[in-house]
Amino acid sequence: MREHRDKGDPSYYAVIFTSKRTQGDKGYAAMAQHIEELAREQPGFLGIESTQNQQLGITISYWSSLEAIKAWREHPAHKVAQKRGKNEWYKYYAVRICKVESERFFEAN
Amino acid sequence: MREHRDKGDPSYYAVIFTSKRTQGDKGYAAMAQHIEELAREQPGFLGIESTQNQQLGITISYWSSLEAIKAWREHPAHKVAQKRGKNEWYKYYAVRICKVESERFFEAN
Repeated sequence: MREHRDKGDPSYYAVIFTSKRTQGDKGYAAMAQHIEELAREQPGFLGIESTQNQQLGITISYWSSLEAIKAWREHPAHKVAQKRGKNEWYKYYAVRICKVESERFFEAN
Repeated sequence: MREHRDKGDPSYYAVIFTSKRTQGDKGYAAMAQHIEELAREQPGFLGIESTQNQQLGITISYWSSLEAIKAWREHPAHKVAQKRGKNEWYKYYAVRICKVESERFFEAN
């Protein structure tokens, strides 16, 4: 996510989701795409960044408020994905809800 | 990073570093390894997680306090790496300092 407001007190939230997958796709890729598209439509959604390697996946989503995060967490379609995540797709995950206290950016000329 | 204390108010900080690299290694991989080893030795360091794909790199480091983050940011060897980062290795980066407000973990049986 590029900067969405001026430097200083940014006043928004990041949800850090780190995970280790089980073996095989088992419908994961299609659901991950669906859930990301749905997240982008939610009130208070600001951006999402995701990378993974063989050992670890990291997805960070950015939100305008804790209320927006909570509403997305409770979204019925997201709940379905969370349940399948626990049962099928993840060996391990951590979810950290964080307040962004400061931010700075660099862009090469 | 696995949980390092009980669920509830975790009271620690995450530094989210997202970046786009320039082409070619130019000494990046060796320096990245060196800097990560050095970070692990710093007071207040709690953990680090890193993944990357062709478009994006994400590194999250976890720290016990804002003071620890600041001291690491000002560490002379880190300063040298930061300068080379701007001049040689990064097209773009963002650094977000975040307070972890809540965390939860899942581990499959």
